[in-house]
Amino acid sequence: MTVAQRGTVYLVGAGPGDPELLTLKAARLLATADVVLHDDLVPAAVLAQAERALLIGVGKRCGRKNISQEQINVMLVDQARRGLAVIRLKSGDPLVFGRAGEELDALRSAGIPFEVVPGITAAFAAAAALGRPLTDRRSASSVSFSVGHHAAGSPMEPASLAGATRVVYMPGRDFAAIAAQLRREGLPGGLPCVIVSRAAQPDRQIVRTTLEELEHAAPLPAPSILLAGETFREVQPEQFETFASCETVPAAKPPDRSDLNRIPD
Amino acid sequence: MTVAQRGTVYLVGAGPGDPELLTLKAARLLATADVVLHDDLVPAAVLAQAERALLIGVGKRCGRKNISQEQINVMLVDQARRGLAVIRLKSGDPLVFGRAGEELDALRSAGIPFEVVPGITAAFAAAAALGRPLTDRRSASSVSFSVGHHAAGSPMEPASLAGATRVVYMPGRDFAAIAAQLRREGLPGGLPCVIVSRAAQPDRQIVRTTLEELEHAAPLPAPSILLAGETFREVQPEQFETFASCETVPAAKPPDRSDLNRIPD
Repeated sequence: MTVAQRGTVYLVGAGPGDPELLTLKAARLLATADVVLHDDLVPAAVLAQAERALLIGVGKRCGRKNISQEQINVMLVDQARRGLAVIRLKSGDPLVFGRAGEELDALRSAGIPFEVVPGITAAFAAAAALGRPLTDRRSASSVSFSVGHHAAGSPMEPASLAGATRVVYMPGRDFAAIAAQLRREGLPGGLPCVIVSRAAQPDRQIVRTTLEELEHAAPLPAPSILLAGETFREVQPEQFETFASCETVPAAKPPDRSDLNRIPD
Repeated sequence: MTVAQRGTVYLVGAGPGDPELLTLKAARLLATADVVLHDDLVPAAVLAQAERALLIGVGKRCGRKNISQEQINVMLVDQARRGLAVIRLKSGDPLVFGRAGEELDALRSAGIPFEVVPGITAAFAAAAALGRPLTDRRSASSVSFSVGHHAAGSPMEPASLAGATRVVYMPGRDFAAIAAQLRREGLPGGLPCVIVSRAAQPDRQIVRTTLEELEHAAPLPAPSILLAGETFREVQPEQFETFASCETVPAAKPPDRSDLNRIPD
């Protein structure tokens, strides 16, 4: 049985929101960790699994706007050196569209033992909620993931073609820009698009549209994700109630253990 | 707490091999299901979680070469109609590079209630084993998944560009063909490539090479996966021992409950 080791940092995927979609390993590490540094999008029901840990929100929306990536790196190294069992808990999977690369570099440079524990990323949770595959030998032979809110200097890749499912993380509010980009890549106006908000949480919302109508879609609450591809052509709103999978998500808030005095300057 | 419901089919992700990388939901469904139809690549340690279920191997390598996709669809519908709680257990996540689309269509057509439970797909397990991100704001803004063994009529998409991580599932033995395809797409010969075999199992193997040397790489035991991208440039063989994450995988075989008489003609 996995137990979080002292002096080690675990980069752990929190999954898409439903605590039942944590891996067994993630749940066991959370239950035995000393401190959990978490993103702001990790819901309370997931944080509640960390029964004995100090919880520190380090996301941009946690009300701690001044925590930089460099400060997070320093906190991880510092807390491991103090002999704590440290979890860096990231929404979905830790190795896509986060800054895990920088955190791993910092841990390697400092000689801190670490382990990465994968999690269910939003694309898979959204497809599961829709009951539609991301690839299908009849219509979609590949799938690509990009971000809508891309950093300066890293434009969205023109990587899409007919037959490839496209997933856009963090699509934000500017659907017109995303639609224009996908059209420039040659995708047809009639291509089915689905926006899924909070895919594995009780307040999940789903909007089905097409590429040519995408710019008129209203933004949904974060975290949301945009899926575009032929495999979503038959998606109908009435299907979502039948196959909802989130009944078991508890609404409980975790105890307040955010002893912020422990955060280094 | 999730319990598998009678008359329902669950498409469940078995994850990448380590039973600790099952989701809590998958583990609870497996523990309470009546029958589990599983792929051939699902290891014994994962099947052992299905304590009371009839286990039926339906993969091409399970020694039942004559089970067609159509027969699997019929079995799922038939067993649910008999009132059994049925799990269709697929390696990794159920919604990529399998035939979930066809199974979901069959269930919808027959009016069988179903639910999809996502799992950790191999790309994330392989990246976790390497301790390297699939995307990084410094070098890779997107990631795409395709298959090496592609079906007739669905050629590998020319979807790759500098700045995009490429993942090839089921690369097979013909690395020269994959390398030629990636070179045609404009990827540089010096691009780091990593082949990971059985990413979350005790006998994991990792080979690090470059795109121009890829054709000389020896195939590794299935399931294996090929990762190509700048984020893997610093991967060194000696890192793998330090951060191995598979010590807890039990080697036990599951009990033999494959009562094949229940399979319809």
